[in-house]
Amino acid sequence: MCRIAAYSGPSIPLENIVVRPKHSLLEQSQHASEAKLAVNGDGFGIAWYDQDEAPGLYRDVLPAWADGNLTSLCRMVRSRLFIAHVRAGTVGETSRQNCHPFSYGRWSFCHNGQVPHFPTIRRRLEAALPDHLYNARGGSTDSEMIFLTLLANGLANDPDTAMAATLEQIGAGRDPVKLTCVFSDGQTLFGFRHASKGNAPTLYASDTLDNGGLAFASEPLDGGAWDAVPQGEIVELAGLKSCQAA
Amino acid sequence: MCRIAAYSGPSIPLENIVVRPKHSLLEQSQHASEAKLAVNGDGFGIAWYDQDEAPGLYRDVLPAWADGNLTSLCRMVRSRLFIAHVRAGTVGETSRQNCHPFSYGRWSFCHNGQVPHFPTIRRRLEAALPDHLYNARGGSTDSEMIFLTLLANGLANDPDTAMAATLEQIGAGRDPVKLTCVFSDGQTLFGFRHASKGNAPTLYASDTLDNGGLAFASEPLDGGAWDAVPQGEIVELAGLKSCQAA
Amino acid sequence: MCRIAAYSGPSIPLENIVVRPKHSLLEQSQHASEAKLAVNGDGFGIAWYDQDEAPGLYRDVLPAWADGNLTSLCRMVRSRLFIAHVRAGTVGETSRQNCHPFSYGRWSFCHNGQVPHFPTIRRRLEAALPDHLYNARGGSTDSEMIFLTLLANGLANDPDTAMAATLEQIGAGRDPVKLTCVFSDGQTLFGFRHASKGNAPTLYASDTLDNGGLAFASEPLDGGAWDAVPQGEIVELAGLKSCQAA
Amino acid sequence: MCRIAAYSGPSIPLENIVVRPKHSLLEQSQHASEAKLAVNGDGFGIAWYDQDEAPGLYRDVLPAWADGNLTSLCRMVRSRLFIAHVRAGTVGETSRQNCHPFSYGRWSFCHNGQVPHFPTIRRRLEAALPDHLYNARGGSTDSEMIFLTLLANGLANDPDTAMAATLEQIGAGRDPVKLTCVFSDGQTLFGFRHASKGNAPTLYASDTLDNGGLAFASEPLDGGAWDAVPQGEIVELAGLKSCQAA
Repeated sequence: MCRIAAYSGPSIPLENIVVRPKHSLLEQSQHASEAKLAVNGDGFGIAWYDQDEAPGLYRDVLPAWADGNLTSLCRMVRSRLFIAHVRAGTVGETSRQNCHPFSYGRWSFCHNGQVPHFPTIRRRLEAALPDHLYNARGGSTDSEMIFLTLLANGLANDPDTAMAATLEQIGAGRDPVKLTCVFSDGQTLFGFRHASKGNAPTLYASDTLDNGGLAFASEPLDGGAWDAVPQGEIVELAGLKSCQAA
Repeated sequence: MCRIAAYSGPSIPLENIVVRPKHSLLEQSQHASEAKLAVNGDGFGIAWYDQDEAPGLYRDVLPAWADGNLTSLCRMVRSRLFIAHVRAGTVGETSRQNCHPFSYGRWSFCHNGQVPHFPTIRRRLEAALPDHLYNARGGSTDSEMIFLTLLANGLANDPDTAMAATLEQIGAGRDPVKLTCVFSDGQTLFGFRHASKGNAPTLYASDTLDNGGLAFASEPLDGGAWDAVPQGEIVELAGLKSCQAA
Repeated sequence: MCRIAAYSGPSIPLENIVVRPKHSLLEQSQHASEAKLAVNGDGFGIAWYDQDEAPGLYRDVLPAWADGNLTSLCRMVRSRLFIAHVRAGTVGETSRQNCHPFSYGRWSFCHNGQVPHFPTIRRRLEAALPDHLYNARGGSTDSEMIFLTLLANGLANDPDTAMAATLEQIGAGRDPVKLTCVFSDGQTLFGFRHASKGNAPTLYASDTLDNGGLAFASEPLDGGAWDAVPQGEIVELAGLKSCQAA
Repeated sequence: MCRIAAYSGPSIPLENIVVRPKHSLLEQSQHASEAKLAVNGDGFGIAWYDQDEAPGLYRDVLPAWADGNLTSLCRMVRSRLFIAHVRAGTVGETSRQNCHPFSYGRWSFCHNGQVPHFPTIRRRLEAALPDHLYNARGGSTDSEMIFLTLLANGLANDPDTAMAATLEQIGAGRDPVKLTCVFSDGQTLFGFRHASKGNAPTLYASDTLDNGGLAFASEPLDGGAWDAVPQGEIVELAGLKSCQAA
């Protein structure tokens, strides 16, 4: 279980989402209230867009709250669209390559959930990747694999079709697949929740930020209006338009 | 708030205390039940004694559960006396120099608690150190300062007197001083709890380990007999003798 | 021995100084040609100024060339004035607190050189600091101590007087004091070279950057015109004015 | 280019090979004399054998000389057979998963060299692995892949045949394959040098250590008798027997 916060709108310091809100992502990293684990200390990451097509990527294995660099970066770096993630690894050693978000070209992606039968399908999924995406695999998580599979399935052309094809490839196992993710091409923020059984991890969208910006968050960042993202359909937050289903 | 586990007895793999017990230190690092914070993810450390007078010291800033090296070391390294610690830093950046245990010569020391008025006495305490201990200061914590002050006050000659003098130097502030610590000279394990007001963090002692060894732990490691260490007196666990007040 | 690069001028991506030049700071971190050690792999850091008075600070203990985050930051972050440093620690464990640059308020500072008799004067220098600077001490290096002493001696009011007083306090030892440093208040870049005997580490200044900017560097970054900073006087690079002695 | 040191013989502290010799592995990490790069600062690792069949594994991304834990471990940990490695990564981000040695079951392996055409054969090699080895892949290096392929080719049964089959699978590219490696099953140390063209990185064997032990090293650790390992045949160092070709 992890926590996610993402923003699209007028350029703001990252800290306005990551640090300053009453229930900021940093606060959620220590005191999540809607997650199975209250603490998300197994690394963090931020993908942010500025002038380049490709996002900047900052990831580290420390708990977000223990990283002095992160505080400084969040105060100094401004961005018009960014995705931030704090990780609660369930098993194994933490490495930067396994920290979210992942990026490829202009795309960035982060994930909260799990594919319990991933060990049994990992090899098949990797074999299905075209060479350029196979060679882009840097870590060993199910999350990165979902991202690369989405790209292989044409995420850039049709997110809905790519998601459906990816879920089809993942298939079902004994334990339910849970997948809440936020991703972007640098223009639009996409949010999606899926569970093969039961409830996917929470995700909320807001179009009532003070500055006119839009946001996704695993838990509402403040007392404003936040709508739960429904399961099974991709929600897009684009530019300064209001929240709308794809 | 942190969690501590320490052992003295026949040489055993570190994992027998740190990893394997049902409520091991590793388990307490994620699910502490008697601490203000359930998670202790701001680094960890182990001081262990073997043939040399000086202990080995292994400390890192990662959460204990995310460090693959720790798992391997705990399986391979055997010791007749060791102190292990998982840290929950309240503020600031994590660094190895601020991780417990601290060591100097043959002594090792770890601490769970806080001196809330430390910023106002830090300079005075540092000025009171003899040169060799002043130069040994590696980090910036109250914990390391308590250790060096204990040494300056003659810990090696008379722990009780050294502790009394140190508490006197620390004095009182508006908020209560809380100090639960475990330390050793490589022969004896010492445990101590103090609170200027209210209760100090928990510490338990056991002389009923399966292999005849003795242990301190912030929370009982298993279902055996564990006695709460009383506040205000140093408890010694020495060799294979039973738990006794100093 | 370390390597330094600093810039003042129109806002540019950090990579234009740190990564892209033929003999960039990153290149110098692996193949320094005018230093005793060719490799500077014991951490790095960047202090950069934007809208806030206080600089952003990014420091890590990895070799600069092994940090994926650094590459991304250097591509994305733009700044009108920044100081970057790669470190070659002579002894001891690397920690972020001992990485340059150091910052306090609006000031940043980095250093290349050493005070060989520092252990014998450390205590005296620390005792001479006013409380607010004493409490700002985060690490244990001579470099950070020089910075704090400069501040205590009125760096903000008169850099020349502050430097003279600081050198006086440092005094001489058996082995020569060598001190090449670059520092800034966010408006002006200051460079200084001093050796109590022999030559201080190299430092060059250039006012012929393509974009009209000004720079200091331990070794010329490219084939343009670079003037050696003379020993014993503070050189200022301010705004878009040309290089001039203070 | 990396540097390797390995030992088999009476149980000794790791430091007797890694730290104490005049031209120890630690010294070689900063001042290699027979390598293309003098500095090997992109991580290090040690695999050591004690009572368990599986080795202990300690790896970190810091330069070996900057890791205080390593110094302590090398002083405290004793072993009858161990392999140590300092890494000079040619490209990309350092991660523990890409640090040597690698281990699987009772086997450990480290490598100095490169397969320049690895990107073009990586996918084919990975596809050829049986499931249990495919799932054991933790990083993205050619080195780990060579190790897993050796295991897949029956390293445990016949090292010579496994090596020949592995070299066959790797094949040739435009630039020469260079492969100097040391590996062990916990009983025997194996050393091997191969170059598809020109010279493989150096490797020496010694059976004249003071304590009767045997060693491999990229560069002689001291002034004793060291024989260059010939290219193309696996050299075994077993127990207290003298150096002999397989």
